[in-house]
Amino acid sequence: MWQQKTIHLAEKPRGFHLITEEVLAQLPEIKNIKIGLVHLLLQHTSAGLTLNENADPTVREDFLQYINRLAPEDLNYLKHTYEGDDDMPAHLKSSLLGVELMLPITQGQLNLGVWQGIYLGEYRNFGGVRQLIVTIQS
Amino acid sequence: MWQQKTIHLAEKPRGFHLITEEVLAQLPEIKNIKIGLVHLLLQHTSAGLTLNENADPTVREDFLQYINRLAPEDLNYLKHTYEGDDDMPAHLKSSLLGVELMLPITQGQLNLGVWQGIYLGEYRNFGGVRQLIVTIQS
Amino acid sequence: MWQQKTIHLAEKPRGFHLITEEVLAQLPEIKNIKIGLVHLLLQHTSAGLTLNENADPTVREDFLQYINRLAPEDLNYLKHTYEGDDDMPAHLKSSLLGVELMLPITQGQLNLGVWQGIYLGEYRNFGGVRQLIVTIQS
Repeated sequence: MWQQKTIHLAEKPRGFHLITEEVLAQLPEIKNIKIGLVHLLLQHTSAGLTLNENADPTVREDFLQYINRLAPEDLNYLKHTYEGDDDMPAHLKSSLLGVELMLPITQGQLNLGVWQGIYLGEYRNFGGVRQLIVTIQS
Repeated sequence: MWQQKTIHLAEKPRGFHLITEEVLAQLPEIKNIKIGLVHLLLQHTSAGLTLNENADPTVREDFLQYINRLAPEDLNYLKHTYEGDDDMPAHLKSSLLGVELMLPITQGQLNLGVWQGIYLGEYRNFGGVRQLIVTIQS
Repeated sequence: MWQQKTIHLAEKPRGFHLITEEVLAQLPEIKNIKIGLVHLLLQHTSAGLTLNENADPTVREDFLQYINRLAPEDLNYLKHTYEGDDDMPAHLKSSLLGVELMLPITQGQLNLGVWQGIYLGEYRNFGGVRQLIVTIQS
C-alpha cells in the first residue's frame, strides 16, 4: 500500500535539531503498519536530514561547530555569494550530510536503533519553514 | 508495479553536472505513475550522485573547488596511487556525497523541491560513460 | 512481497571492512528475487555503511587515514567527550558517510557495479557486534 503526503517542520535556528517526534506526530499512519518503509525527502538545498545520537544535546552542538568549520563562510574562492555568506556553505553541507532518509517500519513503529534519532540540519541563518515529501510503503 | 532498467550518462569532464533532464529523458515510465519512488544507483566508485541547486552554474563550480580541497590529490599518506593521482581522492569523494538516490514520484513527475536537481559528481579526469541501475516502484 | 529481519555483523577493529559476503550470507532470500530492492539500516550512531572499491585493501586503509584526519580526536571545541576521545568523532563520521543503503536486486543477485562492495566503517576503538535491520521488497 502506498501513502504520500507533504509535511512541514516549524522554522528553526541555524543548527542541528532532533525532529523525530515532530515528524512522527504528522505520520499517524505508521502506527497501523506491520512491515514497511518510510521515505523522507527534504525539498531544500540549504538544509539536510541525517540520523544521529538522540540523547545528549551537546552532540548536536558539536555537529554545528564541526560543520561550520568543515564548510566555512570565508572561503575566498566561492563564486555563488550573492544570497549571503551562509548560502553556498549551506549548499555544501546539504550534500555532505544528505537530504533524504529511508527508514524501516516494524510493528507500528520506526525501527531505529536505541540511540538513533532524526536530525534536521538547518544551515541557513533564517531558513524558514521546511517542507518534506513523505512516501510510505507497506 | 516494478520496473528496472540500465541507463547511461554521456561522458563528462571532471566536475559537477546537472543531469535531471538527461535522466528523465530515459525514464518515460515516470509520466504514467501517480505515486511511486524511483531509485538510482550509480555503479561506480569514482563518481557520485547528489541533490543540489538547479539554477546557478556557479554552485556547481564552487562544489568542484570545494571537493577538490576536501579530498586533495597530494595527500602523502595515500597508498592506493597506481591508478593515478585523481583515483583515490575520487573514491573518497564518492563515499562522501554518495552514489544512490531515492526520489518520490507524484502525478507523473519527480517530486523534487523547486530548486533541487540531480547532480553527477564526476571525480575522475577521464571517467567515461557512467552507468545507472534504475528501479521504479509504483 | 515484504521480508524484514535483523542481522548482525561480527565485532571488527576500527577501520573500513568489506562486508558484502558477510551480509549476503545472511540473506539467502535474495537468490529467489527477480526484481527488488534491499534496504540496510545500521542501527548505530558511531559506525556507518557506504559503497566503495571492493578489490584493493589499500583503499580501505586510505579511507581510515583520511577519515581520521577529516574528523580528528583532538578538536578542542568538542563538548561531548565523556564517552572517550573516539566517540564524538565517530558520530561525525557516521553522518558524513551515512548508515543506510538501498541496493537493487536483479535475477537473484545484488546489482552492484563490478568494483562496488559494501563497507562497514567501524569508527569506535571497541565497537562490538553491530546490528542491521534488513527490509527486502520484491
